[in-house]
Amino acid sequence: MNMISRLLPKIESELQNQVARLDQPGTHHFHEMLTYHMGWTGEGAGPEATGKRIRPLMVLLCVASCGADWQSALPAAAAVELVHNFSLVHDDIEDNSDKRRGRTTVWKKWGLAQGTNAGDGLFVLSNLALTDLEAGYSPAIVLRAAKILHATCLDLTRGQFLDISYEDRTDLSVDDYWPMVSGKTAALIAACCQLGALLGGADDAQQEAYRAFGHYLGLAFQAQDDILGIWGDEALTGKSAASDLVEGKKSLPVLYGLENNGAFAKRWRQGPIRAEEVQRVAALLEAESARTSAQDAARQMTDLALENLRVANPQGEAGASLKSLADKLLQRGA
Amino acid sequence: MNMISRLLPKIESELQNQVARLDQPGTHHFHEMLTYHMGWTGEGAGPEATGKRIRPLMVLLCVASCGADWQSALPAAAAVELVHNFSLVHDDIEDNSDKRRGRTTVWKKWGLAQGTNAGDGLFVLSNLALTDLEAGYSPAIVLRAAKILHATCLDLTRGQFLDISYEDRTDLSVDDYWPMVSGKTAALIAACCQLGALLGGADDAQQEAYRAFGHYLGLAFQAQDDILGIWGDEALTGKSAASDLVEGKKSLPVLYGLENNGAFAKRWRQGPIRAEEVQRVAALLEAESARTSAQDAARQMTDLALENLRVANPQGEAGASLKSLADKLLQRGA
Repeated sequence: MNMISRLLPKIESELQNQVARLDQPGTHHFHEMLTYHMGWTGEGAGPEATGKRIRPLMVLLCVASCGADWQSALPAAAAVELVHNFSLVHDDIEDNSDKRRGRTTVWKKWGLAQGTNAGDGLFVLSNLALTDLEAGYSPAIVLRAAKILHATCLDLTRGQFLDISYEDRTDLSVDDYWPMVSGKTAALIAACCQLGALLGGADDAQQEAYRAFGHYLGLAFQAQDDILGIWGDEALTGKSAASDLVEGKKSLPVLYGLENNGAFAKRWRQGPIRAEEVQRVAALLEAESARTSAQDAARQMTDLALENLRVANPQGEAGASLKSLADKLLQRGA
Repeated sequence: MNMISRLLPKIESELQNQVARLDQPGTHHFHEMLTYHMGWTGEGAGPEATGKRIRPLMVLLCVASCGADWQSALPAAAAVELVHNFSLVHDDIEDNSDKRRGRTTVWKKWGLAQGTNAGDGLFVLSNLALTDLEAGYSPAIVLRAAKILHATCLDLTRGQFLDISYEDRTDLSVDDYWPMVSGKTAALIAACCQLGALLGGADDAQQEAYRAFGHYLGLAFQAQDDILGIWGDEALTGKSAASDLVEGKKSLPVLYGLENNGAFAKRWRQGPIRAEEVQRVAALLEAESARTSAQDAARQMTDLALENLRVANPQGEAGASLKSLADKLLQRGA
């Protein structure tokens, strides 16, 4: 059994213990909202509903690739996944989304008031989880970890602010893309790697290399995901909602297209793109080199991620698993 | 100049510094949402809009009443006020409120998406503020303070969950009241006093006395506030919206009335109470002893608060200010 398969059940059980803080008289139903969102209970519960737990895996693999024991770092792994899930619950409200991983979203199921509060609950649980590091680390290290996590959460809210602001803006360019995805996607992945290195006992320079690896990995992943959102199989041939073009998402290729200010930009500004236009508009974008430009950017970020990973110099089986997880995220074949 | 007047400008300036973490290129507008909510900028800004900063005052007075210097505790004072304000921003969303202290609420002004995210931003800033205690305290103390604050935030979300759940329930009794207000109101005031004692260097027993003082003070304050919400001058003779009866709030006197299951309960179950009925329905409640019962409960909680304050044994000018602040909160005349 490979390392990732060994870690996943430990992560799940740590997460369940952390969320169980809410399983108290009078608030069982509150607890149930969170176990539903986490994919453990309710309709559609199961592996499809939990997500891949990439972030906690990154934390533990980074710890172990520094040659340290990953067991004591489990509370940090739970904390980053709880932060991720808090942001998903609030994102679903902010994007007015009915579905998440094929299931009804928390706020749609229990209403806006309980949904907002459930997101807050996950956020608080992430804070509490992190303080459990106390059992295995000095207060100074726990405090350093907390500062990393809180600064990351501030980046998340800044990225979210930008993303929401962009909805009403017509003057966006590629320069507006990177600050937004740095906050929304890359900050938390960077924090996972930095926390892993910190808890793995790495020195400041090595921590910085791990952090930078996570940062560029996050940017490369998002750029790649944006390309697949337009030219992936599902986007071009699947249901209309599967294409970022129909959703009006200001993704990287779209921003290249808008910057180019040609036929694509003209069509985009005329209003929402309909399902039957998806192939034609994607072809317009491609003809204007937006696909190639986005691929070049994704490749550049990937190179920077791998260069930093080389400097971080991860060791052993965990190091190999970390590389293979990164490859998988970047769809380079695992 | 009394001690409270000396502390208030220091609190305000610490809060402004903490919130300024968001005053960065690209997110000035995000920063502006928070400075608006805090009462510093925008229409209606000024002392009326900031609130009374009761919670940070309690922190600093508790520190000083233990004989310690309150300056180093300023980040904790800011943290509790930021938690309070995060909860207000999300409460306004959860209660669908248009106005807060006479001004348009954040989510009404900037939309639900930005409003939700602005609340999250204040929450993150409270976490970051607390880590600034590092400058004046050991990592072990800072971590202990963080655990107190996080546990309190969990209580807040549990209280909020109960409050929202109660909206749809018709079977509530007085027993359902205390767990809800323990979370929504008392937990944070208890935390302010406990944090103050911790940072003031008090031992565990004294910290517990301070905490219990804050807890019962919070309960007494809420019970008192609920009584004024029905029989206060503004409630009986002011605009209809000023009465908790019109708002349908399940406050302490209402729960006594429902438990009594007489004429008041019958009218309550028939649907919303109209402005022109307020005086008559308040009289029904009073005839069924709901007012007296609520007053007895408020008095009992006040006695417990004062008994714990006696045990906590606060010293000097700060101790006197703390007592006068408590009296003011309980409307016993300052």
